[in-house]
Formats: sequence, structure tokens, C-alpha cells
Amino acid sequence: MARDGRGVTAQSEDFAAWYNELVVKAGLVDRGPAKGTMVIRPYGYRLWERLQAELDRRIKDTGHENAYFPLLIPESHLHREAEHVEGFSPELAVVTHAGGKELEEPLVVRPTSETIIGEMMAKWITSHRDLPLLLNQWANVVRWELRPRMFLRTTEFLWQEGHTAHADEADARRETMLALGIYQEVARDLAAIPVVAGEKTPGERFAGAVSTFTIEGMMRDGRALQAGTSHYLGVNFAKAFGIRYTGETGREEFCHTTSWGMTTRMIGAIAMTHGDDQGLVFPPRLAPYQVVVVPITRGGDTAVEEAAGDLARRLRAAGVRTHVDDRPQLSPGFKYHEWELRGVPVRLELGPRDLAAETAMLAKRLGDEGKQAVPLDSLPEVMPGILTEFQAFLLARATEFRDSHTVEAATWPDFADAVSTGWARALHCGTRACEEDIKSLTAAGPRCVPLDGEAAHGPCVRCGASSAYGKQVLFGRAY
Amino acid sequence: MARDGRGVTAQSEDFAAWYNELVVKAGLVDRGPAKGTMVIRPYGYRLWERLQAELDRRIKDTGHENAYFPLLIPESHLHREAEHVEGFSPELAVVTHAGGKELEEPLVVRPTSETIIGEMMAKWITSHRDLPLLLNQWANVVRWELRPRMFLRTTEFLWQEGHTAHADEADARRETMLALGIYQEVARDLAAIPVVAGEKTPGERFAGAVSTFTIEGMMRDGRALQAGTSHYLGVNFAKAFGIRYTGETGREEFCHTTSWGMTTRMIGAIAMTHGDDQGLVFPPRLAPYQVVVVPITRGGDTAVEEAAGDLARRLRAAGVRTHVDDRPQLSPGFKYHEWELRGVPVRLELGPRDLAAETAMLAKRLGDEGKQAVPLDSLPEVMPGILTEFQAFLLARATEFRDSHTVEAATWPDFADAVSTGWARALHCGTRACEEDIKSLTAAGPRCVPLDGEAAHGPCVRCGASSAYGKQVLFGRAY
Repeated sequence: MARDGRGVTAQSEDFAAWYNELVVKAGLVDRGPAKGTMVIRPYGYRLWERLQAELDRRIKDTGHENAYFPLLIPESHLHREAEHVEGFSPELAVVTHAGGKELEEPLVVRPTSETIIGEMMAKWITSHRDLPLLLNQWANVVRWELRPRMFLRTTEFLWQEGHTAHADEADARRETMLALGIYQEVARDLAAIPVVAGEKTPGERFAGAVSTFTIEGMMRDGRALQAGTSHYLGVNFAKAFGIRYTGETGREEFCHTTSWGMTTRMIGAIAMTHGDDQGLVFPPRLAPYQVVVVPITRGGDTAVEEAAGDLARRLRAAGVRTHVDDRPQLSPGFKYHEWELRGVPVRLELGPRDLAAETAMLAKRLGDEGKQAVPLDSLPEVMPGILTEFQAFLLARATEFRDSHTVEAATWPDFADAVSTGWARALHCGTRACEEDIKSLTAAGPRCVPLDGEAAHGPCVRCGASSAYGKQVLFGRAY
Repeated sequence: MARDGRGVTAQSEDFAAWYNELVVKAGLVDRGPAKGTMVIRPYGYRLWERLQAELDRRIKDTGHENAYFPLLIPESHLHREAEHVEGFSPELAVVTHAGGKELEEPLVVRPTSETIIGEMMAKWITSHRDLPLLLNQWANVVRWELRPRMFLRTTEFLWQEGHTAHADEADARRETMLALGIYQEVARDLAAIPVVAGEKTPGERFAGAVSTFTIEGMMRDGRALQAGTSHYLGVNFAKAFGIRYTGETGREEFCHTTSWGMTTRMIGAIAMTHGDDQGLVFPPRLAPYQVVVVPITRGGDTAVEEAAGDLARRLRAAGVRTHVDDRPQLSPGFKYHEWELRGVPVRLELGPRDLAAETAMLAKRLGDEGKQAVPLDSLPEVMPGILTEFQAFLLARATEFRDSHTVEAATWPDFADAVSTGWARALHCGTRACEEDIKSLTAAGPRCVPLDGEAAHGPCVRCGASSAYGKQVLFGRAY
């Protein structure tokens, strides 16, 4: 493998190796001792905390309340919803012994919490006045992974899971789309990922859902990554757990429920949407550090060190997350490379000559402008604008990349060609057999039926039968 | 059992029943389906989020970084520190099957994370420049409980666990006391619990620690509750996991490590420190709602409803967490009782006559002042001061209660009498046999050797042998 000086395989050479090496090398994550587990290191966890704070605020602003439900679920609970248990059984971790004894009934480590929350909802809801019940939980979940990949597929991951109960289908479907809209906004406006929102085809639905909606991002290798899902569960879980309410007329009805989740997978999505051969590129709105200040001293140049500290304080006062890299044992060049690898949007270099000129050298993580000398005094004022521009630049670049790698495919050769490097929008018959046929030939599957797609009918791009869904389906290879 | 109109046993009659019923009735918590597990409901979770935000800020301000380590730990890891595994083995929940197969090595659901973090520290630390390594994790842990009690002893609970590595004992001991100081401050200044900080006697140490420090609060039944612990682990875990660094002179040394934790148990501590026959009493700095506004209308009195909403907005703008209880189907009297039960510090009643007089009736959750008419316009300005006073009142009341239930006991009868209703400070020989003797006779054990105790020597209050520790020991029955 060709590697640059940083010891990470070039993205252009081997995307998978680049990703696997980069997330570890950049200090985002490390492998845990148990198979498929990950340790989220402080630099990665800061990114998660930023995302969490932003997402949590939006969830609360739309009337949801946080709660916490148990990790361990009696195995029999999962069996109450037939499709649900069928979908999750192969991925379950099971506690059979506790307190030094074999348990009478094994406990499942939650892979998701519909069942245990359903059980509690049935207890809490009696009247139409208790509805809607809008809950959210921040938690860890465990799903056994045979081919783990840091952030993308790990045995344990962190997420939020919204769970809501409603009086009727219309209200529950409104909620499903509300959550999807929040995810789309968070992905686009914070992570700078121009996701496509759409509905999953029946074969790709969440186990137990009536409808599953998704946001799909395009990674820089052209593959799709599902970055958040929102499910309308109908009355499936309400029937399985007895979630009923008495309506205004006194009649007892089943609740319509929803669930929706976004996970630490987003960290991987950000790495694969914006990163390049030099390393990570973090969108300023989520970056742990938006600016790194590197003082250029030969040890003990207190004037430069003090000026760097002072600059950082003034940037922080202006709301800019700033880190000073004052490690004495490392050269400025080493630090530049390291912070490029770690994706900090803006670097400020400050040496004795800069200080004399009352400027700092500003280098952006991306863009062809090279370094610029900027007056020290102006930095706190201009930096927020520079970061906003950088954020917009990332979104525009990712949108351009996505659009230039998405093809409307009317013929099978066009389709096969499109999904070898990106996505295809095509008409499809909607049968599982044809989906499987396409997958075996191209490794691409239906990602979603995009919400913004226009009405379209005609022959299936693969088998020629009449198209389903009333519009085109988005196909791609996926993580 | 005598119950008041709210369906909760009186505190004065049966403290345990009062607590068990109240935390459920007040909507803080509910029982989970698996034995000993709890569901933290939104009202309880809001309190936890308040505590979490305050504690997290203090942890970060003192240089610690958050990270996340795996839930599942290979069983062999726990065996590497002999005392540690001996202490935790009886409480472990064990995953033996995953992904549809029996695992080659069982995985333990973390009861605490010293072992897995020790393993990672050994990987990350090589040089003295990597020290101190100051980490914190917010997580769930599982310890199998035979006699579960909501918040106090549950099979799963939430906590933060700090884990740090240092170059020498002095630095690690400084860290241990720093964490203890943060806990003492959070308990006192936020939860209004005047805890006693001290060192655990050897028999009460954390499994694997060299020294364990604790903060102990007195509940209103005179029992002690351990509300946070901080451990100096010496080089025990460093030796077990190989956490070594190369010093400035080039010599390889073992790190000295610490760990410290505070948990959702604090919610129970708050309930049992301040609650009374009427229900919970929340300290304003942690209360989910500091003020509840109850509009008194006979449905459709829009002037009153609007004024209530307007008042709430102005209180919120003044930084006061305010809730308007505008449920149409419930009487004002029902609401007053409910919010007393739920511990809201201040209630504002607003009816048509109040509105005409441009006042609201203000009722505090505790105190003998009765209701007062307060000009609506002045409320946003005066409320922060009222809440500050209420917070100080709770701390003063709890301090007075603690001090009036703590006795310096020089004789065995005085000692036995003291620990039947509260705490005793007494000289003790320090032997395990004598500790056990005291426990079997009085159900009281050594809570800690208070840090603020004065030097004292003499005969053991129980056996007459020479006292240990150089000062008095605090004894009490405990949760």
C-alpha cells in the first residue's frame, strides 16, 4: 500500500483501508477487546457531544421528553411482535447468568427498545388525554456484527431513539415525517451531508414497521450510507403490547406508534463524506476544534506563547472553539500535518515575525487559497464568517459530488454503470426477486424511494415489468 | 397503613413505604420488567439531566475529557486484578450467547470500567508526556441486586465514572481529593445535601483500591447514604494491565490511577433528604420545574389563561424554569396537591380576582408563611431571589437535622442510642471483628473517617482496645 507521511493509505487508492486507518490514527476511535466493540476517544466523543446537543435541542423543541429505559429485556418480550423478533434474533446478545446463577428467563441486551417501551406505554396510557406521548432516549444498544467496522457497524453503538404513541394514523405519520425532517436538517445543516430523504422499499423496512423512512448520504467512494431512520409502526406494537386508549366517545382504541433513531454512525458518515488523502475534514458546526493555533517557537519564546494564548482567548470569547497546540517537543510542521489529519477547519500559525507584523498566517483545511496573513486584531471578528463560509463550501462540494455521481438510468447498461461509481435513479417493478437479482449482479440495492421524486411510470430497469411506487427508486451500493 | 389523600404512606409512619410509593407516584420512576431494573420517567430524567450538566461542566473545567468505552468486557479481564474480581463476581451479569451462538469467552456487562479502561490506558500511555491522562465516561452499569430499591440499588443504574492515570502517588492522590471535592460541592450547593466527606475504613473500600473516599448524606430517617466515592488505586490496576510510562530519566514506571463515580442514586438521596409527608421537595438548582403556574379558570377564561402564559414567558426570560399546568379536566386543588407531591419549590395561583388585582398568589413548598399576594409585574424580578433563599433554607434545614442527629459517643450505650436514630462519632479500634460485632448489635457500620475530624486517641467505643485512624469514626445505619 502506498502511504503518505502520516501512515494512512491514500483515499484514492483504497477507500476502505483509508477509512479504517484514518479514524484510528486521527484519535477518533480505538478497537475494544470484545469482538466488534469500539472505544470512542475524546476527540471522537467531542464530535458526538456536539451532534447530541444539537439533536437533543431539536427533539425537545418539538415537544419530546427524554427518559431512560432498562438495558436488559426479558427474551419473551421480543417474541410478542413476530416480525420484530425475526429481524433481530440473529443479532442478539443474551445474558443467561447473573448474580452467580443461571437465570430462569434469559435477558436480551437491547438491540432497540420498541418492546420494553411498548410495555411501559401500555401501562402509562389510558385516555386520549395521555396522547400524544412523545419520548426520546439516549442510550447504548448492542447488535452482534459479523463484519464490524468502526462507527458504521459495531457490536455496540450509541444513539437516540424516539418512541411516540398517537391517537390515529394521521398524527403518527406526521410525527414520523417530523423526525425525518429533523434528521435531514441535522445532516445537511450541521454535518454538511446533503442526504436524500425517502421511503424504504418493503424488503428494507425495519422489522415490525408499516413504513420506514430514511436519509441516505453519498460517501466519497460513491456508496450510500443510511444516516437516520424513522418508522411508522402502525398498530403492530400497540397490539403486541396492549397500548390502548379510551377516546372522547368512550371507545377503546389501539395507539399508532412511531420510532426513529440516529447513531454514532454519523461520525463515520462525516469522515467519509468530507475526508481526503490528507485526512479528516470536519464541518465547523460540529468540529471539536474549529481553529487550532500553532505557536512557532524554539522553546521559551514567551512573547509568542502569550500572544497565542491571548488570541485563543479572544477567539473563544467570539464563540469560536479554539485549541492551542503548545506541545514543546513537536515541530510546527508535524503539528500542521497532524491537525490536517484530524480535520480542523482552520489553522493559525503564529511566529516571531508574524507577531512583529501583528498578523497570523491563516490556512484553511480545504481550498486553493494557500496561506494568508491576517491582522491579529481582526481575527475574532472575521473568524465566524470564515467558518460559516467553510461550512457552506463543504455542503456545496458534497452536493456537487453527489449530483455528479447520480444518474437517471433508463437502460440496464446505464444502470449498471451508474451504480459502479455512484447512484442510479430508475424505475423498478418492486418485487423482491428482481431486487435480489440486481443485488447479485451489481451489489447495489434500493436505498429509498425519494420523497422529492416526480411521478413516473414505465418498465422496470431490470426486468421490464410495470414499475411500482409511482416514481423512481434510488439504487446504490451501501454501507 | 395510614395514607393521606394522595395515596402515599406518611413519611413519619413508614419511611421505606413512603419512599417506595412516592418516587413512583411522583412520576420519577417506574419498575422495569426485568428484576431490579428501573425506568427513569421524564420528570426524574429532567432532574438527572440538570445534575449531569452541572457535574459535567465541573469535570471538564478541571481538565477531564469525556470518552466512551464498551459495555461488554471479556470475563478474563476482570480476573486480572484479584481483589477486584472477588468484589464484583457476585454481582455480574454475563452474556454467554450472541449472534445465535455460544461465545468462546463469556462477556461481562460492565459493573464498572477500571478493567477495560486500564487495558486501553496501557495502550495509549508510553511517555511521561502522556500524563496525567484524565478521562470521564457517562454510562450505564449493571450490578445484580438481590434487594433492589428504586434509584438506591437497582440492577442497572446511570453514572459518570472518572478514570485517571498519573506519574506518581502525590498527583494521583491530589486527583482523588479533587474529584471528592467536586462531589461535595455538587451535593451541597446543588442538591442541598450537607454531606460529610471522609475516608472509608479498610473493610469498606472499593475492590482493588488502596484508599476509598466517600461523601455521606443523612436521610430524614437518620440513615446514611453514600452519595459519591473517589478511589486512589495505587499501582494495582497499572500492574494488572501494564499501564507504564517512560519517565524523563528514561526509566519505566507504573502509573498511579484513580477512579470516582456519582450515580442516579443522587435522585433518591434528594428525595430522602428533603421530602416530607406532603411529598418531594426539590432544591431549586436541580428542580425540573422551579415554579408551577396554576391558572384558576372554569374553562375558556382566556384572559386568565393568557396571563398565565405571559407570566410563564416572563419568568423563563428571567431564567426561571416554569411550567404552566393548564390541564382543563383537573381542579386547581388537585393540581396544588400534585405539584406539592412532585416537589416544585414555588407555586403561583392565578385566578380572575388575582388578575383584576394584578397579583398572583405565591405558595412555597415549605415554610410557615402561607400564601402571599405578589404583584405580577414584580415576579420575574423577585423570583430568582426567592428560589435562592429556598435553596439556602433547604441546606440549612438539612444541616440542622444532620447535626441534631449526630452524637459524639464516648460510651457504648450512648453509641447504641445515637445510631438508632442517627449517627455517632466515636473512637474505634479499626479491627474488622469489632466492626462486625457493632454491625450485628446495632445494624450500624463505619461510614467514614471524616476528613474534618480533629486528632483524637483513646479506647474503642465498643471493645476498649486502642483507637485507630488518629481520629473519630462516623458510624450509622446505611442504605
